[in-house]
Amino acid sequence: MKTYLEKSREELLSLKSSLEEEYKTQEAKGLSFNMARGKPGASQLAISMPMLDVINGDSDMNTLLGNDTRNYGDWDGIGECRRMMAAMLGVKKDNVIVCGNSSLNIMYDTVVRSMVKGVCGSVPWCKLDKVKFLCPVPGYDRHFKITELFDIEMINIPLGEDGPDMDMVEEYVNNDESVKGIWCVPKYSNPTGISYSDETVKRFANLKPKAEDFRIYWDNAYCIHHLYDDGQAEILNILEECEKAGNPDIVYMFGSTSKISFPGSGVSAIATSLKNMDYIKKFMTTQIIGHDKINQLRHSRYLKDMDSLKAHMKKHAEILRPKFEAVLTILESELAGTGIGTWTKPKGGYFISFESLPGCAKDIVAKCRQLGMVLTEAGATYPYGRDPQDSNIRIAPSFPTPEEMTEAAKLFVLCVKLSSVEKLLADMDD
Amino acid sequence: MKTYLEKSREELLSLKSSLEEEYKTQEAKGLSFNMARGKPGASQLAISMPMLDVINGDSDMNTLLGNDTRNYGDWDGIGECRRMMAAMLGVKKDNVIVCGNSSLNIMYDTVVRSMVKGVCGSVPWCKLDKVKFLCPVPGYDRHFKITELFDIEMINIPLGEDGPDMDMVEEYVNNDESVKGIWCVPKYSNPTGISYSDETVKRFANLKPKAEDFRIYWDNAYCIHHLYDDGQAEILNILEECEKAGNPDIVYMFGSTSKISFPGSGVSAIATSLKNMDYIKKFMTTQIIGHDKINQLRHSRYLKDMDSLKAHMKKHAEILRPKFEAVLTILESELAGTGIGTWTKPKGGYFISFESLPGCAKDIVAKCRQLGMVLTEAGATYPYGRDPQDSNIRIAPSFPTPEEMTEAAKLFVLCVKLSSVEKLLADMDD
Repeated sequence: MKTYLEKSREELLSLKSSLEEEYKTQEAKGLSFNMARGKPGASQLAISMPMLDVINGDSDMNTLLGNDTRNYGDWDGIGECRRMMAAMLGVKKDNVIVCGNSSLNIMYDTVVRSMVKGVCGSVPWCKLDKVKFLCPVPGYDRHFKITELFDIEMINIPLGEDGPDMDMVEEYVNNDESVKGIWCVPKYSNPTGISYSDETVKRFANLKPKAEDFRIYWDNAYCIHHLYDDGQAEILNILEECEKAGNPDIVYMFGSTSKISFPGSGVSAIATSLKNMDYIKKFMTTQIIGHDKINQLRHSRYLKDMDSLKAHMKKHAEILRPKFEAVLTILESELAGTGIGTWTKPKGGYFISFESLPGCAKDIVAKCRQLGMVLTEAGATYPYGRDPQDSNIRIAPSFPTPEEMTEAAKLFVLCVKLSSVEKLLADMDD
Repeated sequence: MKTYLEKSREELLSLKSSLEEEYKTQEAKGLSFNMARGKPGASQLAISMPMLDVINGDSDMNTLLGNDTRNYGDWDGIGECRRMMAAMLGVKKDNVIVCGNSSLNIMYDTVVRSMVKGVCGSVPWCKLDKVKFLCPVPGYDRHFKITELFDIEMINIPLGEDGPDMDMVEEYVNNDESVKGIWCVPKYSNPTGISYSDETVKRFANLKPKAEDFRIYWDNAYCIHHLYDDGQAEILNILEECEKAGNPDIVYMFGSTSKISFPGSGVSAIATSLKNMDYIKKFMTTQIIGHDKINQLRHSRYLKDMDSLKAHMKKHAEILRPKFEAVLTILESELAGTGIGTWTKPKGGYFISFESLPGCAKDIVAKCRQLGMVLTEAGATYPYGRDPQDSNIRIAPSFPTPEEMTEAAKLFVLCVKLSSVEKLLADMDD
């Protein structure tokens, strides 16, 4: 079988014509699919409905320590919820602050705090001429939006199978004082699904940052979000590794139950060294009297501990797996051997990352939209929305049903083919 | 009856001796009362327990518009909750963003945002040599802590029966470009319980700020928190007045259900002009995907509308009133005519504000603590914790039972008398 790149002009033209016909047929259907965000589907939301019965009008509202969750207090979270989140993140309870419903909000607050007041006594970033963040790419658009909003210069770092290009990371962090942070999704990375190797984690822990206020922003968003029982990724505990390396303060870990219980109504947490926590405390206790402890109680009584968390996550996996497989089956049957795309086969997380021919991603996403299928904006996985190759597309298969995903994947493949043919023909004309 | 100030040295010495004896007797009892914070008592928390039954595992989780509250979306709050909070704050729904569990957090975010990125395009405050806030005193310590944390200079403005000294406010705001804000609790003020007169509100609305980024921080924390059916305070709608005055953008209003449903598990809101909302949106949508909409649904289904809110608040008033009255009865019977203290008789809110002889407040609070009674730190009602007269003490009667409040008030009065006698004797020796 010839790849598209080996086809003659005539072959491509003939293919284009049949693809265009198919495209018109699909366009006329007026379909509607949304694969833009990592949004759980209705059946996933149903899993956690019993949690809403755990706390009711007759419940004992006290924590195990006897604090009334309905009243003010416990700014760092109730004990049992801190313990649960610590177990989930693989860290010690004493290193965890449980916050509100959004780990993104904790990250935002962390960056803003550093802008206005520095990090553990360093010069506030807003007083500096230049502040830079390293951004492994492709990565999570909402991370990049935070640093962009505060005019922090973002530097692309290629993300491979084992994590970011650590030679580049070390080069920047150890030599450039204006580099203050790096965004990481170390497990089932958004969007490529890769997990950092032990060597990568160790190299992170052993960084020798030029800037005293450099921190690793370790967004452990998918820490227990496996799709399969076999071959589950496990990553080293970065807090422990940093401690071993004599770098206890260089990392903030973030996590939440947004994709465990309910997106938007879960609990979130930050885990870091006691020194960092102490600094954060001054700000958090000025910012808020305390987070929603009733919701913390609800979560810790329902999700309990690691064993029940794992059992709970299996239910999510059972719902998600067929959706991922629906996409992968179509990609495989339609695009394998064509040379016009590669894609990830993730073992966890929420995304499939697709690489088209260079220069085709924006066009594919636009073509999909024309057919009624909303994808994440092409480029969103790169800082400033600029994918230098214009090739990365993030597919989020969680929201539609598996049947819809099959249909959607077929449309996607159609658009990939048509766009690629058009690109190859245009290249011939150059 | 002689006031303490008219007593002779001998009379004071004899009084001192009997007060000291009583103090020792009380000290030996090892009592424990907490009147430090405006913390609802257990019976108030019980009022809202049925709210926890409103949403359960079988509930329809959709908003009236059909959005699933369990999933991402509605960054500015679900429609029915925006409508309810708007009714409570007396503003239009379109001017309201419903946020998380803490209005203090919205205020903090608002100040931080202005520090880093300015207000609707103005120069970020962190780039300025000097930023000042006006602080009506006595006032709310947590407001002052926010501005203190960010090195904003705070200027005391005397708070009278009708509100802040508006001559001073106008003088500062209309002439000093470094004055960027003023903290207000316009209704049942914390701690004095006064409410701003119509003239005060109109003068606020008609300010001609020298600084384009000046805003009024209108913390409407006690908007429906009346203690009595009669003589309820009503204040003018500041948003409307500002609009009339051609100043639509100079105010942010804040409010929450913290003292309506559960402190720490309520919903909060900011109300402001569409222009301000538009600016805020860019930050909020970067900071968070959305707030806890299930809790918003729970609140709007349970608290419904103004009629049911009012009925609900009556239950709080019935519980709070006897506690306030217990304190007022003791203050009246023990201190009326002594000349060593004055106090407020609030019609709403959470506090009684006590003015001792100058130079006694810190000592009274210390003496109370020695007897096992925790009061708000003396000075806390002033910026930097510095009460220039050392005379203001905030009493929070909400947490103990009425019986405890009677006991606690007796101890308080004992400490006031002893401290005053000691002060008067010391003054004689000067």
